[in-house]
Amino acid sequence: MNVLLVFAHPEPRSLNGALRDVAVQALEAEGHEVRVSDLYAGGWKSEVDRADFTQLAPDVRLHVAAASGEAFAAGALTADVREEHDKLLWADALILQFPLWWYTMPAILKGWVDRVYAYGFAYGVGEHSDHHWGDRFGEGTLAGKRAMLVVTTGGWEEHYAARGINGPIDDLLFPINHGILYYPGYTVLPPFVAYRVDRLDAAGFTRVADRLRERMRTLATTAPIPYRRQNGGDYLIPSLQLRPGLGGPTAPGFALHLAGPAAGD
Amino acid sequence: MNVLLVFAHPEPRSLNGALRDVAVQALEAEGHEVRVSDLYAGGWKSEVDRADFTQLAPDVRLHVAAASGEAFAAGALTADVREEHDKLLWADALILQFPLWWYTMPAILKGWVDRVYAYGFAYGVGEHSDHHWGDRFGEGTLAGKRAMLVVTTGGWEEHYAARGINGPIDDLLFPINHGILYYPGYTVLPPFVAYRVDRLDAAGFTRVADRLRERMRTLATTAPIPYRRQNGGDYLIPSLQLRPGLGGPTAPGFALHLAGPAAGD
Repeated sequence: MNVLLVFAHPEPRSLNGALRDVAVQALEAEGHEVRVSDLYAGGWKSEVDRADFTQLAPDVRLHVAAASGEAFAAGALTADVREEHDKLLWADALILQFPLWWYTMPAILKGWVDRVYAYGFAYGVGEHSDHHWGDRFGEGTLAGKRAMLVVTTGGWEEHYAARGINGPIDDLLFPINHGILYYPGYTVLPPFVAYRVDRLDAAGFTRVADRLRERMRTLATTAPIPYRRQNGGDYLIPSLQLRPGLGGPTAPGFALHLAGPAAGD
Repeated sequence: MNVLLVFAHPEPRSLNGALRDVAVQALEAEGHEVRVSDLYAGGWKSEVDRADFTQLAPDVRLHVAAASGEAFAAGALTADVREEHDKLLWADALILQFPLWWYTMPAILKGWVDRVYAYGFAYGVGEHSDHHWGDRFGEGTLAGKRAMLVVTTGGWEEHYAARGINGPIDDLLFPINHGILYYPGYTVLPPFVAYRVDRLDAAGFTRVADRLRERMRTLATTAPIPYRRQNGGDYLIPSLQLRPGLGGPTAPGFALHLAGPAAGD
C-alpha cells in the first residue's frame, strides 16, 4: 500500500519523532511505500484566510466554503494544499500522528484539516436528494482508503477510561475519527494511543514501540470502527437522525460528569 | 463585569462579525467593560514552536510543558501571550466566539489555547497529594470567573441533536467546555449555538441576534453547566475515576453511531 503519515510535533528528537521513525520503518518493512508530511518542518500555514483564495477580489467578502469551492473547481488552491491533495489521492492509508494537546490535535494539524479539506474535495461532494445527503460519512472522495490516529498523551489511561475525568478517549477522538476521517469517506481504524509518555523509561518505550509496530504490521487488516453509513438506511433524511429502534442503551457519555438529578445520583 | 471576547473569524463582514458587534453592544449596554482579542486581525501565531521559548538554548530538545513552565516562571513568554494572560486575569468573564469547522474550533483559536495556556498558568497549578490532584477541573488560576462559547454552524440543529449524525452538540463541545474552560477553573455556561447560518435571511438574523442579546444580558446570572469538581470527593484519586454509585444511566453517547451487537440493535 501507499501510506501518508501526517506528523504534527515541533521537536524531531521527541518521543513523537521516535515513534514516527518506528512507524515508517515498520511500514517499509512490510513493503509499503511511505510519504511523510512533517507540518512543522515544512512550515505549514495554519490559518484559513484570504491568502488561501488568490482568485478572490480584494473587495469581496470572504465566505470560506464558497471561496474554497471556487478555488478547488478552478484548480486555484495554493500549491501547499494541492500537494496534500495529491498525496491523499496517492495514499491507500492515512495516518495522523500528534500529541493530544487540550484534548484534541495541535493547532497546526487542525490547520492542515481546515485548509486541505476544501469544498468539492472533502465536503460539498455528491448529490443531495430525498435518499442521499451528499457523499459523506462512509462515501466521498477518499472512500476505499483506510485512516487511523497515532496519539500520545501525558495523562494516565485511567483518566481517559469510561468513568475517567477527562472523558473516554474514544469519545474525545470521535469528532476527529467520525467528523474528520469518516466524513470524506475513510474507513477508520481504532486509534493507537500511548499514555503517560512524559515518564517513559527505556523499557516503557520498547513496549510502546512494539505495540505501534504491530499496528503498522496490521494496517491493511485491522477491523475498522463500524460507523454507520449516512446514506445506508440507518438515518432519516433530511433530519439525519438515527432511525427509531436503532442504537439501544449504550455506554454513558460525557453526561457522566454532570452533578445533580439529571445524572441519576 | 469585565468581559474578554476572543474572536476567531477571518472576515469582519461575516455573520460572525455581525454577531460579535451585537454581543459587544449588548454587554456594554449592561454596563460591562468589554475587550476583544480579534485573532485574525491581530495576526495571531497559531503554532507552538521554539520561537515561543526564547530562553531555550538552540541545542536543547524542546519539551513543550517544561519549556512553557520555565518561560512562565521567568516571565519570559512572548509579549502576545503575556498580553492575553493580562486580559484573562482582568476579565470576570471570557467568551470564545468561532464558526464550528470540522466539529471544533478553527486552528487559529486552537493555537490561542495551545500558546496562552502555559504551564504554571492554565495547567501544572497547585499541589498533588492523596486528596488533591492539582488545581484543575473546578479550581485553578481562572476560578471564580465565568466562560461561555458563541458558536455558529452551517449544519442543521437536528443533525446535532441526541440522535443526529454529527453527534450531540453538547458532546462535541465537551472537550472545549470541560477540557479547556473548566480545566483552569472557569465556571462554564451553556453554549450559544446558531445553526444553518449559511441560509440566514434578515428575519433569521434578527432572531439569532435577539437570542444572543438575551444571553449577553444574563451573562452574570445564567446557571452554569454543573460539572463535578475534581477534588470535591466525586472522583477517586489518583485514578480520577468517578466513584462507584455516582453517574447513573445517562443519555447514550457517540456509541449510538456504531452498528452491530455492541450498539444494542
